[in-house]
Amino acid sequence: MYDAIIVGGGPAAYSASLNLKIRNKSLLVFAGNEKTTGLMKAPQIDNYLGMPGISGTELLEAYKRHAEEMEVEIRKEKIYNILNMGDYFALNSGSEFYEARSIIIAAGHAKFKYFEGEREYLGRGVGYCATCDGPLYRNKSAAIISENEEGEEEANYLSEICSQVYYIPTYNHKTKLREGIKMIEEKVLGIYGNEVKADTLKLSDSQLNVDVIFIIRNVLPVNQLIEGLELEDGSIRVDRSMATNIPGIFACGDCTGKPYQIAKAVGEGNVAALSAVKYLDTVI
Amino acid sequence: MYDAIIVGGGPAAYSASLNLKIRNKSLLVFAGNEKTTGLMKAPQIDNYLGMPGISGTELLEAYKRHAEEMEVEIRKEKIYNILNMGDYFALNSGSEFYEARSIIIAAGHAKFKYFEGEREYLGRGVGYCATCDGPLYRNKSAAIISENEEGEEEANYLSEICSQVYYIPTYNHKTKLREGIKMIEEKVLGIYGNEVKADTLKLSDSQLNVDVIFIIRNVLPVNQLIEGLELEDGSIRVDRSMATNIPGIFACGDCTGKPYQIAKAVGEGNVAALSAVKYLDTVI
Repeated sequence: MYDAIIVGGGPAAYSASLNLKIRNKSLLVFAGNEKTTGLMKAPQIDNYLGMPGISGTELLEAYKRHAEEMEVEIRKEKIYNILNMGDYFALNSGSEFYEARSIIIAAGHAKFKYFEGEREYLGRGVGYCATCDGPLYRNKSAAIISENEEGEEEANYLSEICSQVYYIPTYNHKTKLREGIKMIEEKVLGIYGNEVKADTLKLSDSQLNVDVIFIIRNVLPVNQLIEGLELEDGSIRVDRSMATNIPGIFACGDCTGKPYQIAKAVGEGNVAALSAVKYLDTVI
Repeated sequence: MYDAIIVGGGPAAYSASLNLKIRNKSLLVFAGNEKTTGLMKAPQIDNYLGMPGISGTELLEAYKRHAEEMEVEIRKEKIYNILNMGDYFALNSGSEFYEARSIIIAAGHAKFKYFEGEREYLGRGVGYCATCDGPLYRNKSAAIISENEEGEEEANYLSEICSQVYYIPTYNHKTKLREGIKMIEEKVLGIYGNEVKADTLKLSDSQLNVDVIFIIRNVLPVNQLIEGLELEDGSIRVDRSMATNIPGIFACGDCTGKPYQIAKAVGEGNVAALSAVKYLDTVI
């Protein structure tokens, strides 16, 4: 049981981690697999006070180094789901469960449009984590729509248990897929199905009849992370102490809304962590 | 007429200045005379992400250097009063007036207790700026209560126009006062007067009958800066965009409330500046 678990691997997450560490709280950071982010691509950042003219990659490196120097434990796993257990939370990383008394969501901003039918069929033939739900689809057919290379691992995994796996990348890199997986380079038009569940993935030039469709996104839609989390304009609603509507859950950084800025994220991580400390000191 | 004027010389002020500059807004920073602050005294700061184990003085130096590299104009003057002129603001630095379309208050947190009678008689025999109001008290008697050396300059100035000047320092440094100024090292007990105005300063061992009492504080009480500014628990009330209740006035850093943290201040300066830019783009 950790005092706090931080979900995210950007500036807000690292900033929050420092403050929890300084306040002697036990914590884990679930940074996920690092993919190329907007921040990494920035050639020069001039508005993070104290570090002028630094590149995004350098800055993120400095942030990570700082957290590591403070002996913050950073995991590359991703958290797919958080369950509210009353006085603590259970977090599902796909392969394992973790427990924490408080949560800081610093999961970034998802820049995407839902596919037609995605929200309608979520949990009913549509999912975000093949590792989590794959076992339910043994000897069935699956399609994976993926925004990044992570989807390839998911597809390779599914190919061991599913009868047929289709892979539809929305990115332009070389893919490393196992034999037998059918890659389809077409545009996704929508997800359709019957009254019970999704069963059809419509692509620009073809149509797949499958038992399940997994969508691997760079950033998980935040409202999927935990039930009952209130949003505002698509971002997590927080007050000035970075508290969400769920006691014990705090949020910071891009997932709390605009402006999508590094200094804002770092500042909010700072505040979210101190609010979590206050919460922990009150509850325990 | 400036696009924005920033009142303050700490992390929030410098962070805001970078962002206004990057967005091509004309601006001035009124940092005031740098006095020793809590930040400067910090031997080691571990929670400003990216710059581990830095001292407060080094960090503030890095901040200032960054702002200067970006060609931000920093003035050592202090702003005593802001007047709302409808579609712009007039700022009084004691000796001069400045004009700006928007204001960012980053004036820090005032750690003080009001003296008995201070609020009651403010503007009626009690003031915060001798340079501003001194001329009204030609050939009269004045007392200056001061938290820092700045008060000595004010006292020296008043000694040129007033018939008698008393100086009551609440700090423990050597004072450089002109001849004729009477220094009194006693504790301030309170300010008293009649129905019209203050006329008496009670000290621990004596009592002064004077025409005016000036109080020079390290940080000006924020609600004195501009009329009608809404507070909450003694701090400036802001929303998540760092807007105050007065259109065109934004606030950031310690003056917006706890936690009093550097990263929070820097993040809020970032957001306040971008909100001011948005405001300017809408109004003009």
